[in-house]
Amino acid sequence: MIRRIDRIQTELPPPSDPDPAGAAAVQELLGGKFGEMSTFLNYTFQSFNFRNKQGARPFYDLVANIAAEEFGHVELVAKTINTMLTGATPTTTTNGRGPGSPLEPMLGIGNPHHFLAGGQGALPQNSQGRPWDGDYVFSSGDLVEDLTHNFFLETGARNGKLKVYEMVEHPAARALTGFLLVRGGVHQVAYARAIELLTGADLMKMFPAPRIPTDKIPECKPHIKRGEHLKLYRFSPSDYLELAAVFKGPHPETGEELEVVEEAPEGVPAYDLPSQPAVFAPDYAPEEIAAIAEKLRKQAGLSKSPSGEVANGKGSATASKPRRAARKPKAAAKK
Amino acid sequence: MIRRIDRIQTELPPPSDPDPAGAAAVQELLGGKFGEMSTFLNYTFQSFNFRNKQGARPFYDLVANIAAEEFGHVELVAKTINTMLTGATPTTTTNGRGPGSPLEPMLGIGNPHHFLAGGQGALPQNSQGRPWDGDYVFSSGDLVEDLTHNFFLETGARNGKLKVYEMVEHPAARALTGFLLVRGGVHQVAYARAIELLTGADLMKMFPAPRIPTDKIPECKPHIKRGEHLKLYRFSPSDYLELAAVFKGPHPETGEELEVVEEAPEGVPAYDLPSQPAVFAPDYAPEEIAAIAEKLRKQAGLSKSPSGEVANGKGSATASKPRRAARKPKAAAKK
Amino acid sequence: MIRRIDRIQTELPPPSDPDPAGAAAVQELLGGKFGEMSTFLNYTFQSFNFRNKQGARPFYDLVANIAAEEFGHVELVAKTINTMLTGATPTTTTNGRGPGSPLEPMLGIGNPHHFLAGGQGALPQNSQGRPWDGDYVFSSGDLVEDLTHNFFLETGARNGKLKVYEMVEHPAARALTGFLLVRGGVHQVAYARAIELLTGADLMKMFPAPRIPTDKIPECKPHIKRGEHLKLYRFSPSDYLELAAVFKGPHPETGEELEVVEEAPEGVPAYDLPSQPAVFAPDYAPEEIAAIAEKLRKQAGLSKSPSGEVANGKGSATASKPRRAARKPKAAAKK
Amino acid sequence: MIRRIDRIQTELPPPSDPDPAGAAAVQELLGGKFGEMSTFLNYTFQSFNFRNKQGARPFYDLVANIAAEEFGHVELVAKTINTMLTGATPTTTTNGRGPGSPLEPMLGIGNPHHFLAGGQGALPQNSQGRPWDGDYVFSSGDLVEDLTHNFFLETGARNGKLKVYEMVEHPAARALTGFLLVRGGVHQVAYARAIELLTGADLMKMFPAPRIPTDKIPECKPHIKRGEHLKLYRFSPSDYLELAAVFKGPHPETGEELEVVEEAPEGVPAYDLPSQPAVFAPDYAPEEIAAIAEKLRKQAGLSKSPSGEVANGKGSATASKPRRAARKPKAAAKK
Amino acid sequence: MIRRIDRIQTELPPPSDPDPAGAAAVQELLGGKFGEMSTFLNYTFQSFNFRNKQGARPFYDLVANIAAEEFGHVELVAKTINTMLTGATPTTTTNGRGPGSPLEPMLGIGNPHHFLAGGQGALPQNSQGRPWDGDYVFSSGDLVEDLTHNFFLETGARNGKLKVYEMVEHPAARALTGFLLVRGGVHQVAYARAIELLTGADLMKMFPAPRIPTDKIPECKPHIKRGEHLKLYRFSPSDYLELAAVFKGPHPETGEELEVVEEAPEGVPAYDLPSQPAVFAPDYAPEEIAAIAEKLRKQAGLSKSPSGEVANGKGSATASKPRRAARKPKAAAKK
Amino acid sequence: MIRRIDRIQTELPPPSDPDPAGAAAVQELLGGKFGEMSTFLNYTFQSFNFRNKQGARPFYDLVANIAAEEFGHVELVAKTINTMLTGATPTTTTNGRGPGSPLEPMLGIGNPHHFLAGGQGALPQNSQGRPWDGDYVFSSGDLVEDLTHNFFLETGARNGKLKVYEMVEHPAARALTGFLLVRGGVHQVAYARAIELLTGADLMKMFPAPRIPTDKIPECKPHIKRGEHLKLYRFSPSDYLELAAVFKGPHPETGEELEVVEEAPEGVPAYDLPSQPAVFAPDYAPEEIAAIAEKLRKQAGLSKSPSGEVANGKGSATASKPRRAARKPKAAAKK
Repeated sequence: MIRRIDRIQTELPPPSDPDPAGAAAVQELLGGKFGEMSTFLNYTFQSFNFRNKQGARPFYDLVANIAAEEFGHVELVAKTINTMLTGATPTTTTNGRGPGSPLEPMLGIGNPHHFLAGGQGALPQNSQGRPWDGDYVFSSGDLVEDLTHNFFLETGARNGKLKVYEMVEHPAARALTGFLLVRGGVHQVAYARAIELLTGADLMKMFPAPRIPTDKIPECKPHIKRGEHLKLYRFSPSDYLELAAVFKGPHPETGEELEVVEEAPEGVPAYDLPSQPAVFAPDYAPEEIAAIAEKLRKQAGLSKSPSGEVANGKGSATASKPRRAARKPKAAAKK
Repeated sequence: MIRRIDRIQTELPPPSDPDPAGAAAVQELLGGKFGEMSTFLNYTFQSFNFRNKQGARPFYDLVANIAAEEFGHVELVAKTINTMLTGATPTTTTNGRGPGSPLEPMLGIGNPHHFLAGGQGALPQNSQGRPWDGDYVFSSGDLVEDLTHNFFLETGARNGKLKVYEMVEHPAARALTGFLLVRGGVHQVAYARAIELLTGADLMKMFPAPRIPTDKIPECKPHIKRGEHLKLYRFSPSDYLELAAVFKGPHPETGEELEVVEEAPEGVPAYDLPSQPAVFAPDYAPEEIAAIAEKLRKQAGLSKSPSGEVANGKGSATASKPRRAARKPKAAAKK
Repeated sequence: MIRRIDRIQTELPPPSDPDPAGAAAVQELLGGKFGEMSTFLNYTFQSFNFRNKQGARPFYDLVANIAAEEFGHVELVAKTINTMLTGATPTTTTNGRGPGSPLEPMLGIGNPHHFLAGGQGALPQNSQGRPWDGDYVFSSGDLVEDLTHNFFLETGARNGKLKVYEMVEHPAARALTGFLLVRGGVHQVAYARAIELLTGADLMKMFPAPRIPTDKIPECKPHIKRGEHLKLYRFSPSDYLELAAVFKGPHPETGEELEVVEEAPEGVPAYDLPSQPAVFAPDYAPEEIAAIAEKLRKQAGLSKSPSGEVANGKGSATASKPRRAARKPKAAAKK
Repeated sequence: MIRRIDRIQTELPPPSDPDPAGAAAVQELLGGKFGEMSTFLNYTFQSFNFRNKQGARPFYDLVANIAAEEFGHVELVAKTINTMLTGATPTTTTNGRGPGSPLEPMLGIGNPHHFLAGGQGALPQNSQGRPWDGDYVFSSGDLVEDLTHNFFLETGARNGKLKVYEMVEHPAARALTGFLLVRGGVHQVAYARAIELLTGADLMKMFPAPRIPTDKIPECKPHIKRGEHLKLYRFSPSDYLELAAVFKGPHPETGEELEVVEEAPEGVPAYDLPSQPAVFAPDYAPEEIAAIAEKLRKQAGLSKSPSGEVANGKGSATASKPRRAARKPKAAAKK
Repeated sequence: MIRRIDRIQTELPPPSDPDPAGAAAVQELLGGKFGEMSTFLNYTFQSFNFRNKQGARPFYDLVANIAAEEFGHVELVAKTINTMLTGATPTTTTNGRGPGSPLEPMLGIGNPHHFLAGGQGALPQNSQGRPWDGDYVFSSGDLVEDLTHNFFLETGARNGKLKVYEMVEHPAARALTGFLLVRGGVHQVAYARAIELLTGADLMKMFPAPRIPTDKIPECKPHIKRGEHLKLYRFSPSDYLELAAVFKGPHPETGEELEVVEEAPEGVPAYDLPSQPAVFAPDYAPEEIAAIAEKLRKQAGLSKSPSGEVANGKGSATASKPRRAARKPKAAAKK
Repeated sequence: MIRRIDRIQTELPPPSDPDPAGAAAVQELLGGKFGEMSTFLNYTFQSFNFRNKQGARPFYDLVANIAAEEFGHVELVAKTINTMLTGATPTTTTNGRGPGSPLEPMLGIGNPHHFLAGGQGALPQNSQGRPWDGDYVFSSGDLVEDLTHNFFLETGARNGKLKVYEMVEHPAARALTGFLLVRGGVHQVAYARAIELLTGADLMKMFPAPRIPTDKIPECKPHIKRGEHLKLYRFSPSDYLELAAVFKGPHPETGEELEVVEEAPEGVPAYDLPSQPAVFAPDYAPEEIAAIAEKLRKQAGLSKSPSGEVANGKGSATASKPRRAARKPKAAAKK
C-alpha cells in the first residue's frame, strides 16, 4: 500500500518559454525502456514477487524502498513535461467565435499526441511516441539476476538522462536531469553494493558509467553539495528497516560513506500549472469548473478557498499568462 | 511522492493447492486493458497532468487519491497470482544431481512466462500473456471527459472482476475478487457522482453495471457488512482534503450515505511466500542468501531475526512445504 | 459509402455443441495476418487511395468491389465464432444467489478473452489472441504491386482456410471454410487475371495454391455446383460497372468461363444467437431489455414484435437452450 | 453484407496546396484510438456479436446502422489525406533520366510512410505513425456497457476532431472536420439517448463535450443549417427499421426534435485524384495503364470512356497539374 | 559479410515422438527477449555500430565474433523445434479424398501458428506466441555499457535455458539446452572478462548465475568433457584476430585456462526432416517437386542425386514415417 | 552456421556532411517491413524450416544462399546510417566542464533514438522509429507459396529502395541504394525464375517492378557495367551447389544470360567510423579504451597496432574531425 503526499521531490521552475520539441524528447525519461516508469515498475513488481522475503529481508527492503522513491521520479518527469508544454497554445479564447486555429503553430513540432490526444500533458510514451510496454519489466525472481538487471537498468537510465541533458536546455528539463542524475546514481550504487555483498563481485569499479562524473554537471552540484548523492531515504513511516544492512560503505566515486536517512524527504509543492483552454484542459471554460468547485466546498463545509499547497500561491490560476511563441525547430530558430 | 507501507489492503489466504491455469486468468485483472495497472496508471497520469488544480481542487483530490488506493489493488492482484503459483513446482531440490524436470508438469498449462521468464510471479501481462501497454492510459486533460473515461473504465473493470470471479474458484482469487468488486464499486460511484456534480447528468441510474448486485456475492458480503462499499479513504497523511466535496450523497444501490474516511486503512501483513528453488526464486539455494542477510543485519547492528511483519510469523520461510500437484486442466481433472 | 443488409452471404448451421477451442482457432481467419479483416481492409484502403481511377477504371472497380464482398466474409467468420461459443456457459442463472462459477469449465480452454473480455463473441484477434494490426494493410499505390500483393494475400488466405478446415470439425467452421475457400478462390483468380492483363505474366499456372483442388473438399462442392467458383458479383446497385473488362477468360483449374453477375447475392438471414447471461450478453437479465424494447417500439408506433429477419423465427430468443458441456481439449476428450 | 456506392458523404474540395504535415496530423482521425476506424469497427463488431437481437432489436438496429455510416467516415478521412498529399511530389517525370530526387523536399516532413511505404495515400495509422490496433475494439456483449463505451468513444472522437480542426487549416481538413463534428455529434446523442432509455440516466446534460458548441464552428454551420445535426439516416434499403424507437426526443443542445431519415444520403462523387508518378501511383507511366484499360473496356464491349462518376469530369486525369511546393514546417514558413 | 555452411553446431537427434507443446515452450529460446535471436542480433548490431574499432579492436573482435556463433544457435533452436513438430500430423495423404482433419488432434495444443500459419516449423516468436521485437536490441555505442548489457543478457539467457531444460524432456530439447548452456556460458564469461579488463570490476564472482553449476547437468557433461566450456572459436577464416587479448585467464567456475581456437568448429550435418503434406510443407504432393528438382539438376549438368550433406543419408525423404500420436498435455497424459 | 568476414559488399564513401534526417529515412531499408532485416530473416527462417530439402535441393540452396547475401545487405544499410550520423555531434569534448549541450542541434531532427538511445548508430527500426517485428517473417513451409512471398517481398523492397533513393541525396545513401537496387533485382529475378520452373507461370513479364529500369539510375550503372545484375554468388565455401539448376536463363530486362558465380564476392574494408564522445560511443574518453586495448594486445603477444583492415588506414581514429553542422530540415535550409 502507499500513502500519497501532494509534493514533488525537488523544485522545478515555473513555466517559462514553452518547448514542445524539448518536451517530446524528455518523454524518453518517462516512457522509454530506461525511463522512470521502467525503474518504478521493475522494482515494484520485483518487490511484489519477492519470495522468502524474511530470509532475504535487507535486499527486499532495498528493492521495495527504491520503488517508492521512483514513483516520485515518474511524477517529476511528468511535471517537467507539463511545464514545458504550458503556454504552447494561446490562453485567450475566441469568445464564442469558434475554436479557431490555436494549435496550428504546433503542427509538425514535437509529439502530436501532446496536443491531439492529451491536454498538453505527459503521456506514458517514449521520445518517439511509442507507448511504454509491460515487456520492459524484468522480474525473474532470482535475486542476484534481478539485481544485475537493476544495475544495468540504472546504467542505461543514467545514459539516457545524460543525453537528454545534452539535448534539452529548457530550465525545467535541466532542473529535472540535474536532480535525477544524482538520485539515479544513488540507486546505481545501491544495486552494485547489493550484488557485491551477495557475490563478492566488485562492481564499484565500473563507476561512473557513462564516464562523466556527476559532479561536473552544474545542475547536479547543488544536490551533491547537500549530500544527496550519498543518502538513501526510507520512504516509509514504518517499514523497510534493514536498508542499512546493504546501503553502506564508501561511495565509488568520492569515497564518502553512504548513509541511510530514516525518513522520506519533505519535498516541495509543485506549481499549479494554468489551464490551456485550447486543448480543453481542464475545460474550454475553466472558470465554470472553479465556480462549481467553490460551491461544492461550501456545501461540504470546507474553506472557501482551495486547500491544496502549490508553489504559486493558494489562488486559482484559471488561465496561463500569455507567453512567447513556442520554440521553433532548432535550425529555423537560428536564422 | 509516496510513502510505502509493507501491508496489503485485505487478507488473502495462505498458499494452498496451486492453480497455474487460474493464475493465468487472474492476470487479466493485473495487466488487462481494464486491470488494476490501468486504473492505477490512468488516475496517476491524470493527477500528474491536472491543470488549474486549485480551481478544480475537489476533483483533483478525488482522482489523485483514488490513484493511491489503486496501487494497493495492483499489489493485491500480484500477491494473489503469486499465492496461486506457489507450490506448482517441487521445493525439494535434487541435491546436486542437476536440475531435473521440475517444470515438466507445467508444460502447456497457464502462462508459460510464469515459469520460463518469471519466478512463479506476477507479470504486467493480461490473461493472454500480452504486456500491458501505455496506450491504455487516457489523459485528455478535459476534466469531464477524463471522468467519463474513468466511469467507463471502472465499469469495464467491474465486468472483468465478475468474470474472473465466475471462472476461477481458487480461494485466493475469490478473496481478491470479493474485495475488489466492493472497492472498485466505490470508485465507480465516485466518478459517477463527480460527473453528476459537474454536469447534472444522473449516472447513478446505471448502477449496478453489469447488473449483478454486489451484495449477492458471498465473498463481497463481509466487506459490505463493514461498510466498505460506502467509504472513500483518504490515502494521505496530509493532503487531498476536499474529497468530501464530491464523495457524498446516497449510494445508488443501497441509498446509504457515502462517507469519506480521513485516513488510510491499516491493512494487514501479507504472507511471506516460500522460495521456489526450481525457478531460482530467490535462488537455487535460498538458505545461502538467508545466511548472508543475517550476517549483514548483524554487521549493521540490526536485530538478528528479520524485522519485517508477515502474516506467517517472523521466521524465515526458506522453502515451501510440499503440496499437492498443480491444478489440472479442467476437463482432465474431472475424469 | 455503403448500404448495409442484415443478411449473411451463406447459410451457417444453428448452434450445436459449443467448441471454444475451435472458436479460438477460427479467429485466425478473422484477425490473422491473412484473415478476412486483412483482405477487407487491404482492398478497402487500396480503393480509397486509388489515383487516376478514371484512367485505370476496370482495375479500380475490381479492387473496390471485392472489398465490398470481403466485409461479408468478416461477418461470416464472426458469426461462425459466435455460433461455436454459444452454449459454452449455462443459461440458467442462479436466481439471485450470486454469479457462481459458470465460466470455470472454460478455464484454460480456447481464447480467454472470449469469456473474460468479450461476451462469447468474436474479437479482432488471431488464433494466438494477438490483435489485428494496421501494419497488415499494404497500399503502395503502385497498381501492379498492389495486385501482386493481393494475389499473394489470397494465396496465404487460402492456405489458412485449408488449415483451419483441417483442424476444426465443428459444423459451423466447416460451413464457413467450405464457402470461403470457393469465394476466396474467385478473388485469387481475379487478381491473377488482372496482373496478366496488365503485364502478360501468366499466373494462372500457379493454381491451385496450395495444391489441393477445391472441388475435392466436400463442403465446397455445393457451392461449386452452383457455379460460385466462377462468379464475381457486383456489390453495388449503381457502380463498379467495368468488372467484366478484367474478370473474364477461363478459370485456371476448370477451364470454365469466368462470369460477372451484375448484382449482389441475396444472402440469407442469420440465426439470432441466444443470450449468454453468464457473460452478461446482452445482460444478466436479458428479458428486461426485451421488455424495454417492446415498450419503445410501441411508443414509436412500430409493430409489437421485432421487425428483423432471423433464421430462427421472429420471436425473442432470450436465453439459449441448455446444451452439452463445452468441447474438451482433444487429448482429454479421447479418454 | 454491404452494398457499396462509389460516392462520398460530403463534398471535399479539389487538391490545392499540398500539406503533408497536415495530412500526418489528420491521420489521427483515421487510425487513432478515437479515429473513424475505431468507431466503424467497434460498432461493426458489436453488431456482429449482438446476442438476442430480436429481444433488443431497436438497440441492435441503432448500433448496426451507425456502423454503416462510419464506413463512409473512414472513407472521407482517407480522401482528405489523399487530397492533402496530392501535388507534394512533382508530376513531370524525368524522361528516362532516372528517378532523380522528387521526394527530397519531403524529407523530415509529415509521416514518412506517406511517401516511402504508400503512394501519397492514407494509411491505417495515427498521427504518430503507429498502426491502428484490434485492441481498440470493445465488444463486451453487455448492451449497457457497450453503449457506455460508445458514448465515451464518441466523446473522445469529438475531442480529437476539434483538436485536428484547431491544428490543420487546409481546406480539405476543415471541410472534413466541419462535417464529422456534426455527424459524430449525432452518434454521441444517439448513444446517450439509448442509455437513457435503458437505464434512465440523463447523459444529455453532458453536452456538448468538449464544451464548444458545434454551431460556433464556421465549417459546421452549413451542415447544421440543413439539419444534419438532427438526422439519423437509415443506411440500408431494407433493414434496421426500428431506429425511431431509440433515436427520438429533443436534441440536448438545441431542443429540436431528433429525426430518423428512412434512406441513406445520396452523397457526392469524389474527385479523381491525379497520378503521382514519383511514388509510382498508380505507375511510373500511368498513361500505359490507361491505354490498357481502354483496350480492355473495348474488348468487353463497354463504353470507350471510363464509366465512373467523379467530381472532376469523366476524362482521364493522368497526371496532377504542377502545384506550389509542399507546405513548410510552420516555424520556417513564417520567416 | 558472411559465408554460410550447411551444417549445425552440434548433433541433434532425429525426429521421434512429436511434442508440439514442448516445441511451443522451446520457442522462448528462439524469439523470447532472452532467446538466441536476441543474442545474435544484439551483438550483430553492436558490431555494425562499433565506432573507433581500431582503437578498441580486441573488444570489437570479441563482440563481432560471438555474433557469428550466435547465428548458429538460432539455427539450432529452429532445428530443434522442427524436429519436435515432425510427425505431429499424418503423412499419408487422403489420395484425392480432400484434406480431411489431420490437424484436429493439434487443436488447443502448443502454438497454433506452428500449424495454422507455418508448416510445422519454427517462428520468430516466444513461448507465448508473441513475435520477436527490435526493441530487444540494445546498442548504446558505449562499450562498457554494451558489455554490461551483454553480460546481463547472457545471464537471462542462461536462466531461460535452464528453465526450458526443466520443462521439456524431449530428447531434441535436451540435446539443445545441454549444448547451449555450455556455449552460452562461454559468452557469459567472455563478457564478464571484457568488463574486468576495461574497468577492473570482478564479475567472475557472480558465476554461476543462476547458481546451478553447468557440470551437474547430464546433457552438458559430454560438451564439458571436450572442453567446450573453455573455448572461444574464431568464426572467420581471416578476421577477428585479437580475441586472445580479451578471452583469457581462468574460468570462474573451474579455474581452467580459457582458450581461443583459431578456427570455427566443423559442425555436423543436420537431419533432412521429412515432408508434412498435411500442412503443405513443402507441398501437398512433395514428390512432384522432387521430380522437378531432379530434372533441373539434369538440365544443369549436376549429379542426378541431390548434392547436399544430411545426417540421414543422401536420398530423398519425401514423407515422414508414421509415428505415434502427438504428445498429450501433461495432466491428461498421466491418466 | 556462418563464417564472418570483416568486409562489406560494396564501397561506401567516408563520412561527409552529417544527415540525421536522411539517416532516419534510410532506417526504412533496415527495419521496415520490406527492409533488409526482413529479407535476411525471411529467407533464413525459410531455410531453417525447409522440409525434405534433399527432394527440393535446388530450391533450398537458392533460398539458403540468398539469405547469406542478405546479411551483408543489413550490414550495408547499418554502415550507411552510421556514416550519415557521423559528425552530427561535436567531437571536441568540454574538458571536464560537464557535458554541455552537444545534442541540442539535433532536437526535433530525425529519429531521436539515434541520439537518446543509441550512439549515433543504426537501430532495428523503420523510418518512423517503429521496431522491426517477427510478424514480418513469412515461412509457411509451402515452397511455391514461400517463393511467391519472396517475389512479392523483393518487389516491395525495390519500391522502398527507389523511394529512399528519391528522398535522400546523401552520397552514402546513394551509394547504398545504387548497389542494393542492382543486387535486390537479382533476387527478384531468382525467385521469379524459381516459380516459373516449378509452375510454369511466367513472372518475368512483370519486370521491372516498379517500372523504372535500373539502368537509368546513375548509381546503379557501375554495378551493371560489371555485370552485377546477372550474377548470383555462392556465399559458401562448400555448400549450396545446385544454384545453377534454378538461376539460369535470360534476364527479363536485358535478355543477357544469368550466371552463378561459385564463390562469394571479396568485398571491401569498411571505414572505421570515428568516436562520437558526446553520445559516449565508444566512450566519453575513447583514448582510454585505446590505451587499454594496446596493453591487452601486448600482453597477448599480438602486434602493437590493431590488426583489422579498415578503409581509412590501420591507425586509431579516436575522434571524428570537426564537420559542418548537421543537415537542416529541408524547408529551413533553403532559405
